Amino acid sequence: MSERKLYKPKPVSGFPEWLPEVRLIEQQWFDHIRRVFESYGFCSVETPSVEELEVIAAKGEVDKEIYVIERLHKEEGDKEARLALHFDQTVPLARYVAQHFNELVFPFKRYQMQRVWRGERPQAGRFREFYQCDIDVINIDSLPLHFDAEMPAIIWEVLSGLPGMENEKIQLRVSNRKILFGLLKRLDVPNQEQILSIIDKIHKISAEKTLERLKKEAGLSTKQANTILEFASIRTTDLDAFHIFLEEFIENNTDQNYEIPAATFVGSPEYLEKERFLTGIDTLSEGAGELNEVIQNLSHLPKDAIMIDLSIVRGLDYYTGTVYETVFVDDPGYGSICSGGRYDDLASSYINKKLPGVGISIGFSRLFARMVEKKTISTARKSPADVLMILPSEEQRAMASATAQKLRARGVKVELFHAPKKIPDQLKYASRKGIPYVWFPDTGEVKNMITGEQKPADPKTWTPEEKR
Amino acid sequence: MSERKLYKPKPVSGFPEWLPEVRLIEQQWFDHIRRVFESYGFCSVETPSVEELEVIAAKGEVDKEIYVIERLHKEEGDKEARLALHFDQTVPLARYVAQHFNELVFPFKRYQMQRVWRGERPQAGRFREFYQCDIDVINIDSLPLHFDAEMPAIIWEVLSGLPGMENEKIQLRVSNRKILFGLLKRLDVPNQEQILSIIDKIHKISAEKTLERLKKEAGLSTKQANTILEFASIRTTDLDAFHIFLEEFIENNTDQNYEIPAATFVGSPEYLEKERFLTGIDTLSEGAGELNEVIQNLSHLPKDAIMIDLSIVRGLDYYTGTVYETVFVDDPGYGSICSGGRYDDLASSYINKKLPGVGISIGFSRLFARMVEKKTISTARKSPADVLMILPSEEQRAMASATAQKLRARGVKVELFHAPKKIPDQLKYASRKGIPYVWFPDTGEVKNMITGEQKPADPKTWTPEEKR
Repeated sequence: MSERKLYKPKPVSGFPEWLPEVRLIEQQWFDHIRRVFESYGFCSVETPSVEELEVIAAKGEVDKEIYVIERLHKEEGDKEARLALHFDQTVPLARYVAQHFNELVFPFKRYQMQRVWRGERPQAGRFREFYQCDIDVINIDSLPLHFDAEMPAIIWEVLSGLPGMENEKIQLRVSNRKILFGLLKRLDVPNQEQILSIIDKIHKISAEKTLERLKKEAGLSTKQANTILEFASIRTTDLDAFHIFLEEFIENNTDQNYEIPAATFVGSPEYLEKERFLTGIDTLSEGAGELNEVIQNLSHLPKDAIMIDLSIVRGLDYYTGTVYETVFVDDPGYGSICSGGRYDDLASSYINKKLPGVGISIGFSRLFARMVEKKTISTARKSPADVLMILPSEEQRAMASATAQKLRARGVKVELFHAPKKIPDQLKYASRKGIPYVWFPDTGEVKNMITGEQKPADPKTWTPEEKR
Repeated sequence: MSERKLYKPKPVSGFPEWLPEVRLIEQQWFDHIRRVFESYGFCSVETPSVEELEVIAAKGEVDKEIYVIERLHKEEGDKEARLALHFDQTVPLARYVAQHFNELVFPFKRYQMQRVWRGERPQAGRFREFYQCDIDVINIDSLPLHFDAEMPAIIWEVLSGLPGMENEKIQLRVSNRKILFGLLKRLDVPNQEQILSIIDKIHKISAEKTLERLKKEAGLSTKQANTILEFASIRTTDLDAFHIFLEEFIENNTDQNYEIPAATFVGSPEYLEKERFLTGIDTLSEGAGELNEVIQNLSHLPKDAIMIDLSIVRGLDYYTGTVYETVFVDDPGYGSICSGGRYDDLASSYINKKLPGVGISIGFSRLFARMVEKKTISTARKSPADVLMILPSEEQRAMASATAQKLRARGVKVELFHAPKKIPDQLKYASRKGIPYVWFPDTGEVKNMITGEQKPADPKTWTPEEKR
């Protein structure tokens, strides 16, 4: 060949790509997730990869990670809105629901499995392009709490059924933000945000250290700090014990000392303190009641599938009630596989309707990449074909091809070998591609490449072992 | 609600988005296409949405349409390679094959169904983001011609089986570029590119006009122009007639007048002319032979599914033999739905291996959008659910939910109604979402929403009509 400059192809950091044998399993994962989502009546939605920058940048926190797109040779005077790749599926969902509001039927149950982009600095294990698999239910004005329980049930079914995840101990952690919100209000503490960020790390550092941070950094009294620590440390699968604890707390903190004195003026410092206190307890009780109902509605799941975990904070400020995280029990440092929660108002930037919802999102690519790395998924097959059809001779091509067609018509996947090579070469090809069966159209026999067994078979009735 | 500035959500021109009922059919299309591709043993490949700009801009012709991506807040001193969204799946395939060369098994049969991006000026009917569905077979050094026939067979199976396409008359047009290349060489004409671009429009203008253009614009003699017009006008399903025509031409043009006189020096003008002539006829004969074999290997398809069409030029200069286009017979102005061909060397920019291939690409989104617009696809269902499970009362939720689980375990898709509303309201919801069956868990009866029939059913055995 002539001399020429070759461009060495290399991976782009943060943009994962799989070999066919891995992609095949990735497809099985998507198929499984879709099957479960649809079995609960969720419809599929796909939105464009881009939104107008103005839409996507409304939430300031991820500004830095936004990728904008631009035509390489933009003409002078182009007046088009700037476009950006979406960094999640929630912003597009909000825009979608608002835009198509009159054409959707509510409660609107949708799932969405698309790539999202985050322009982070390249670093090991961080993807800049990855799949998310989201489900959300949106309704107008109010949304039954029942859906808060449906989410973890669906996610449990999804995660426990993924090929290669059989031996992973997974646990869904559930909380209700109203409990912590109420508590903080009741304790009348400043710096709620700072306290939440300390709680967020409660299981990464010691209780002592947390206490110290709550006091020193957030300026809490020892009593306040102790109470918060006591709450935020709760991790239990024992719903009864949890409830006794909460009821006691509510009872002890709703005593008559807090009756508003008759002479107190509305708006006076005493009144406001009192109100805050009462509202706090109300909010806490409300959250506890909701959490109770959600957990009870999940009683059909295996023991230890669900855990109450009051330390769950979730960074995003739009969650207002139930919140979820999902962890590998044996690898807590890995962080959450799948998170979400309830929000009060999905699309308030676009539409004058109150649209509460609850949703959960699987960080698909990160999870999948972990299982690929752990080698718990089987990557034996480089081809989807069930059968390699032998081509005994060029003269027998039509016959071999017709046999292949008969099998295909019945849903069997068949690759016809491309040249009348020696049989051992054709067998070797099947084995290199991981194709489990080889068909000899001249003798009408099929060979199982794993057991080595070979026997007569009829293309009108034969089915591969694993599909029987 | 409080006053606030609302951002009016609107579609971004050129970036299509579907309502759930349309998306549901789009998914059926993808499922069908994937099923057919895999039934022939093609494996799935997905590449990142981006390539390095240097990779993607190697082919100059689409420069203007390339979208580059950039982090919104790029730090000073970022030294990363510029990234661009891919505009087709061929450039990424070439890079993929070269990069993973040692891990792939050849012939490498892959399909790829992803979004691609073209930053065209927005205009009606032009997408800037759309799906393509490609299949290609790549081999090392040489690739059996048999694959050139497999492509149209697969595409025929794909297109004729798409929901909503039942009444469309589709035809695959096949040619072999060697025939025209050989002819032009034989006629020893200049401006091959100009002639090809005139031929490309041969069926859009009259024969007279074409003749005139060939003479005036390309400077051909009347005889040359006539011969080219005669060839390029050939559109036939009659393989025998086609062959008689070609054989006659070859015979008439390989007469002894063209024997190289013994005294001619190699390199002399007489010798070069002669050589060009002989090579031309050889190339033409080779192309005719290949086309013949491809068409013969497609004899199992319905009459009129395939047509020989020598006017097919295909803009891309990498096609070297068989070429395909696919048209709506009743709407020729629509252009090609699905095109492709054989190329000699997929990845010559990246690797010092000769990798010939043959491939074909369905312009998915454009085709799908056409069928949506023609309303030939049914969009009755806004939900994938087969069954709406009635919630007779809050007390019966557990029972209704358990019945739903029994059905889901058997692959039936069930939405549990969310609130114990009046039965007519629940029925109305099913009908608004287009859910075909409603299940009454209290009486154990199922109602067919289309026929109105209602009868007892067992969740352990019942199956929706269309899946039986």
